[in-house]
Amino acid sequence: MRFVCLQENLKKDLNIAQNIIGRNLTLPILNNLLLQTEEGRLKISATNLEIGVSTWTSGKVEKDGAITCPARILASLVNNLPNKKVELEVKGSNLLIKCESFKTTIKGLPADDFPIIPKIKETPLMEVENGFFKDALNQVVGVTALSESRPEIAGVLFSFERNDLKLAATDSFRLAEKVIFSVSKKPDSKKPLIVPQRTAQELIRILGEREGKLKIILGHNQVLFDMGETQLVSRLIEGQYPDYQQIIPKSFNYQVGVERELLLNSVRVAGIFSSKVNNITLVLKKGQLEVLSNDADLGENRSQVAAEIKGGDLEVNFNYRYILDGLTNISSKKVFLGMNSESSPMVIRPAGEDDYLYIIMPIKAN
Amino acid sequence: MRFVCLQENLKKDLNIAQNIIGRNLTLPILNNLLLQTEEGRLKISATNLEIGVSTWTSGKVEKDGAITCPARILASLVNNLPNKKVELEVKGSNLLIKCESFKTTIKGLPADDFPIIPKIKETPLMEVENGFFKDALNQVVGVTALSESRPEIAGVLFSFERNDLKLAATDSFRLAEKVIFSVSKKPDSKKPLIVPQRTAQELIRILGEREGKLKIILGHNQVLFDMGETQLVSRLIEGQYPDYQQIIPKSFNYQVGVERELLLNSVRVAGIFSSKVNNITLVLKKGQLEVLSNDADLGENRSQVAAEIKGGDLEVNFNYRYILDGLTNISSKKVFLGMNSESSPMVIRPAGEDDYLYIIMPIKAN
Repeated sequence: MRFVCLQENLKKDLNIAQNIIGRNLTLPILNNLLLQTEEGRLKISATNLEIGVSTWTSGKVEKDGAITCPARILASLVNNLPNKKVELEVKGSNLLIKCESFKTTIKGLPADDFPIIPKIKETPLMEVENGFFKDALNQVVGVTALSESRPEIAGVLFSFERNDLKLAATDSFRLAEKVIFSVSKKPDSKKPLIVPQRTAQELIRILGEREGKLKIILGHNQVLFDMGETQLVSRLIEGQYPDYQQIIPKSFNYQVGVERELLLNSVRVAGIFSSKVNNITLVLKKGQLEVLSNDADLGENRSQVAAEIKGGDLEVNFNYRYILDGLTNISSKKVFLGMNSESSPMVIRPAGEDDYLYIIMPIKAN
Repeated sequence: MRFVCLQENLKKDLNIAQNIIGRNLTLPILNNLLLQTEEGRLKISATNLEIGVSTWTSGKVEKDGAITCPARILASLVNNLPNKKVELEVKGSNLLIKCESFKTTIKGLPADDFPIIPKIKETPLMEVENGFFKDALNQVVGVTALSESRPEIAGVLFSFERNDLKLAATDSFRLAEKVIFSVSKKPDSKKPLIVPQRTAQELIRILGEREGKLKIILGHNQVLFDMGETQLVSRLIEGQYPDYQQIIPKSFNYQVGVERELLLNSVRVAGIFSSKVNNITLVLKKGQLEVLSNDADLGENRSQVAAEIKGGDLEVNFNYRYILDGLTNISSKKVFLGMNSESSPMVIRPAGEDDYLYIIMPIKAN
């Protein structure tokens, strides 16, 4: 193999690929990147056996070939080379890298020993705009459960309805749902997918500031996210996602309209005195919203937030961190809070928008 | 006590004071800040029994008094309050804080239980410009030893000669020395001080972007750094600092002039293949500087750096991290390297400047 390209292109692609690699002691080749020439470009691949990433670097292929070498070493090296022409050459079991006055030899492992990343060649399930998809995923991914006892909620649910893609996540204390309306290709399948949290996080990272569109392609128990010059393949989580639609309240006895930043700040301050269970209290009384907290050791705090309120008096306890997460997932100036009683879930929505929904279960009063 | 001031002033001073506080389980009052009115201002103090910081906040004293309360809680609260008027009031053993719609009560401990931070009232040993002093301290502080077996080198040596202040630090593998010429007040004492590393780091942090001058005042086994609105008192390290002057080479068989950024980059890249002992090799040969490294498991690297060289051929091994530290302590475009043999120390200096010196011991060849 002989391949020549610009340092900045190679650097970008190495950093995309190497991120999914951990430290694998039992199967050292998983610490390596697979470099192989393919149709006039260099294909760089990495896998952790759950997620596989491939990305293609433009340059000049002078001789076809392939090798694998340690991801961390290769990426550290290329990150620190000058932004000039880089020459990669396989000599025996080594990769030679030349750039200006820098000459480096990295010991590799044979490309044949690298695990095969499955190829998925079905037709796209749907196509969606990169930036919009990234933002949507960002609004739900933090709510997935990390517990291993319920693997089906350790991922983001992708479900399809008419022309819409619906993303949902829950950790059983709260739930987030985002709808992407009218994606450009109508989904052929109605079968929902559960995409592992790590895959969703990796996708968000790779999407970064990329423009263009992303294809979602479904294989057998696997999914391919195709961004053109970069592809991510992931296993899917098997199992039945909980039927969360039934817990979404249809109507509200109490409705609050409030500026997001003001509420965020009051909740953050109350959180300082929220005792060990992170408990704070929202109080609706005489048409005003009050946020209270009390810690037997530290002290107490109360603040009022200007709000429009429909409904009577109510006092509900929540984990303040869950409220903060919900409010920071939203970017609108105003938010809507909907409640029914001190023991039923609260809904937070961006005011005047119907594509996002965040639900929190209250903490039961003692 | 009743005191009213602006949130941003109080926030700034709380953050200055609280930084030295750790988590003290045996003496809980050390987790607290002492707040006391003093001549129309609020004095905020913190101590970890080694370092004491006091800072004065401007505002309106409506009633004199004092209290202590948990630093982390008070600072978190004030950091999150709106930038408006803040009212502090002592009620019994509590501190009440009001700001806009926020009302908070923090449980305190009596001011009388707070350890006394020593007052040092001698005349200043010297005066030095804040920014210049901060930069100078920054150039040496990283080289202090963290080992407890030789406490005398766990600090920065302040020594005085004519009108100059000399700062030095060593960890026995390398040494940094910075001279501040012609400080504005001639030191009265010739006795050198050893200032603990933590104190030096705290000073750098507090100096931040502050303008003006700093007074250094010596007490019995303690030193006061007086920045006007903020004071830091620290214990001094007792003991005899090693007589490092004797290891500074007076002349060099090999002299190298090189661009700092180019050398930095070559050393950083070589470091990737520096094996477990961080060993890289500098080679002077035929008027050129080469940087080599070799790791039996990973591979090897070499690069040439354009340089002006006086002297013959030489090959010396160094810990690459020590070279990186030295080069990043310097800001000049070019640096001078001076060497005498493969087993004697290398000197790094900013080219054309004689106020900074960094010395590294080589790694002995096997």
